[in-house]
Amino acid sequence: MKLIRFKAGGEAEERSGILDGIRIHEFAGDLFGDRPLTGETYFLQDITLCAPLAPRHIIGIGKNFAAPGTAKPDIPEIPIFFFKPLGTVVGPLDPVILPEGTDGIKFESELAVIIGKEARNLTADEAETVIFGYTVANDFGAINYFHPEGHWTVGKSFDTFCPLGPLIETEFNYREARIQAEVNGVMKQDDYMSSAIMPVDRMIAYVSGFMTLKPGDVILTGTPAGADFVGNGDIVDAIIDGIGRLRNPVRISKQIAY
Amino acid sequence: MKLIRFKAGGEAEERSGILDGIRIHEFAGDLFGDRPLTGETYFLQDITLCAPLAPRHIIGIGKNFAAPGTAKPDIPEIPIFFFKPLGTVVGPLDPVILPEGTDGIKFESELAVIIGKEARNLTADEAETVIFGYTVANDFGAINYFHPEGHWTVGKSFDTFCPLGPLIETEFNYREARIQAEVNGVMKQDDYMSSAIMPVDRMIAYVSGFMTLKPGDVILTGTPAGADFVGNGDIVDAIIDGIGRLRNPVRISKQIAY
Repeated sequence: MKLIRFKAGGEAEERSGILDGIRIHEFAGDLFGDRPLTGETYFLQDITLCAPLAPRHIIGIGKNFAAPGTAKPDIPEIPIFFFKPLGTVVGPLDPVILPEGTDGIKFESELAVIIGKEARNLTADEAETVIFGYTVANDFGAINYFHPEGHWTVGKSFDTFCPLGPLIETEFNYREARIQAEVNGVMKQDDYMSSAIMPVDRMIAYVSGFMTLKPGDVILTGTPAGADFVGNGDIVDAIIDGIGRLRNPVRISKQIAY
Repeated sequence: MKLIRFKAGGEAEERSGILDGIRIHEFAGDLFGDRPLTGETYFLQDITLCAPLAPRHIIGIGKNFAAPGTAKPDIPEIPIFFFKPLGTVVGPLDPVILPEGTDGIKFESELAVIIGKEARNLTADEAETVIFGYTVANDFGAINYFHPEGHWTVGKSFDTFCPLGPLIETEFNYREARIQAEVNGVMKQDDYMSSAIMPVDRMIAYVSGFMTLKPGDVILTGTPAGADFVGNGDIVDAIIDGIGRLRNPVRISKQIAY
């Protein structure tokens, strides 16, 4: 099933829908609830896609793919995890805004796993049972705002730094996910989830070992080699076959037209 | 005004109230809204206090007080910030649970500032206008889960690692706050907010420079020298004159009686 959030006919209100080909069946209520259909339908060409959910937490993992040409290292005892605040979330085609004093920010195309059930202390074998669905994320970072002692919080947390979309796919084999990124149409990242140092199931289990996961928690599963700097005017596409293409322009401010 | 969250008469439901001496006037609706009184009143001795709010984000600052006997350094260009997930929040007298493989965790008594208005790119002079109120926080960390390259996320994020309470005080002069901690009745931390490297107003302004602050965001403003390890059976009190005393026992699991 493909789930979206969208705006119709110039309205400010965001609606929820099930995408069936080019047709959208609107539903009411919570993404993780019963999703009763309202009876309203829309066509894809008439709506504007938004980020497909408002997450509860966004949890990222750092350095989860080996550098190109190097062997995959062992899973670290303590992986690098970080949180991105909720205001980082934007939708497809929304601009990613360069922070003041920053010419270039790094994009990172990633598979985002959406948790659908409360969970604590899962084993890796149990992890898949709490996954609700998958979307594409682009985890932006302003490297000049990383703390010299390793804390990435500020650089990862600027408003607009976590585009999500274009939709949530609930039927998807994350083990075979292919993660790509293009900048202005030129391929920059292209690798498979099988190259990840910490596999997705182990990652979910690890996170559930320190915090109770709940519906709406989003785990960004790491980015392949090739993440690079982009600046004002660049167009970045994060792409996962089977989910979709998430395109965002990078701008120096919201006032400048795309 | 003193605002609390509480449970009455063995109910599971949490209620909101205004504390007036030993009397509680229940109110309905959102903490940041109109707070209409329900007409129900309770006495303090008949209720159980909960964490005084469910935060939207919890943002902490690291290394914000100089080591004892050393001069206060300059404000760093990029301060150390970190997020704690929402499941870290517990209330007064709730147990703080030791993670597996951890004998000792560090407490940190802190003034918690509660944001009441949406804000972005504030100046330090404007910062106070977005503060809703203040509570006491105890920012626990499992140091053996800190990543060797500086990422504190896992160690700071275990469930129960952010007791808040006992109440929100809306009328409080944070510039004169005295921050104390006791372990089993012995004073371990005792210093004033004036000793902080980055003052509270500058901190709020800095955070608003990377993320849009909204009502319910909580900023932990740093802990004085003296934070120390505690283990199973210890009782930790975080104390701020004019707000209150936040007491929590440390336990190896939820099953062991306090």
